[in-house]
Amino acid sequence: MLSEKELKFLADNTSFWGKLSAQEKKEIENCAFGASYKKGAKIYGSNKECLGLVLIEVGQLRAFIESTDGKEITLYRLLTYDMCILSASCMMKNISFEINIEAEKDTRVLVLPTNCFNRLSESNPAVKSFQLELVSSRFSEVMWIFEQYVFGSAAKRLASFLVNISLIEDTDTLSLTHEFIANDIGTAREVITRLLKHFSEDGIVSVTRGTIKIENMLKLKEISNR
Amino acid sequence: MLSEKELKFLADNTSFWGKLSAQEKKEIENCAFGASYKKGAKIYGSNKECLGLVLIEVGQLRAFIESTDGKEITLYRLLTYDMCILSASCMMKNISFEINIEAEKDTRVLVLPTNCFNRLSESNPAVKSFQLELVSSRFSEVMWIFEQYVFGSAAKRLASFLVNISLIEDTDTLSLTHEFIANDIGTAREVITRLLKHFSEDGIVSVTRGTIKIENMLKLKEISNR
Repeated sequence: MLSEKELKFLADNTSFWGKLSAQEKKEIENCAFGASYKKGAKIYGSNKECLGLVLIEVGQLRAFIESTDGKEITLYRLLTYDMCILSASCMMKNISFEINIEAEKDTRVLVLPTNCFNRLSESNPAVKSFQLELVSSRFSEVMWIFEQYVFGSAAKRLASFLVNISLIEDTDTLSLTHEFIANDIGTAREVITRLLKHFSEDGIVSVTRGTIKIENMLKLKEISNR
Repeated sequence: MLSEKELKFLADNTSFWGKLSAQEKKEIENCAFGASYKKGAKIYGSNKECLGLVLIEVGQLRAFIESTDGKEITLYRLLTYDMCILSASCMMKNISFEINIEAEKDTRVLVLPTNCFNRLSESNPAVKSFQLELVSSRFSEVMWIFEQYVFGSAAKRLASFLVNISLIEDTDTLSLTHEFIANDIGTAREVITRLLKHFSEDGIVSVTRGTIKIENMLKLKEISNR
């Protein structure tokens, strides 16, 4: 049973809530549950049970793939208010890959269990649309990471650029627009924005309006030398 | 306007056809069209118009991503009866990556233009489900390629294995079950089947019931040395 606060959280953060019938809302109230994970906890993976749609109330999750010899690649991070659909992948038709999800910070989530979510998705087109949009959005993020891995030049060029400018200006805090950087290293502004978001999630830089502060110069140099 | 034969093709090859209203079928009849592409033709990409759902009547298409310096990575191939949803990606919410599609053989397709397809997907849950399944399935294929690229060991091990056995047996035609190979190189049977499918699409081997014939030993050795 969800609390008033949790219900409001669902209503505020899902596109489908307003399109549910009273009965469907009741169903969610009955099946959804809250869960807490300590930093480092593995919440989804090959030997874990099927979970469902996960909504992050507060905290941070990391989704990654793992090779047989234990090498990991981060696909994306989920922050407060983000939603994770691949934690329901075990019961999604045609999703055949394995994904791992772990808590990077102490995290509190709301879970709509797979059975319950799938039932709603079958009965209510708004939920199905929501599911398609979420899967498409994760697909896009993964494609982006894929391209970075196999072509990989933009991240490297951005890292070199930041290292160089920082040396030139003799400061860690750079006042540069994304547009300016994009022009300089020959890519699109959107790519820079996205790369800086990734760098920032990895604690390499922190980004505020108009400035980029280098937080981990060593890591930045490492990327520029890849 | 579609021919009787093309309508039958649609009915036989889409999961949603039986769940369309007479009016929706009429709408498809009016908006869908056939198109032919010569081998080598680029049918979708960054500077091409939004296409729609593509059904392959006969032929072969290749979907790939391209780096700024022209390096290509094949994501998947589409053969006769396959369907391509990412050729409608330009109008799909939350799909933000660019994909290229070209004809690898002379190809005849049926196209459901994006507008028409999206309208149906909004009005008919069966079409939306079909769309979700197709996107999920491509997502899975791309994840598989991604894992091959970044972890890459199974393909390499399979290639080495085939090269070695061929040397040992002194023949190009190997009688081996997928199960046997899987056990030998320490992976799952499904992985072998999938890898052989890819090898076979690339003309490296040809696979018939119970036998694997090496068609391009040079390429196989190249993969084993990656």
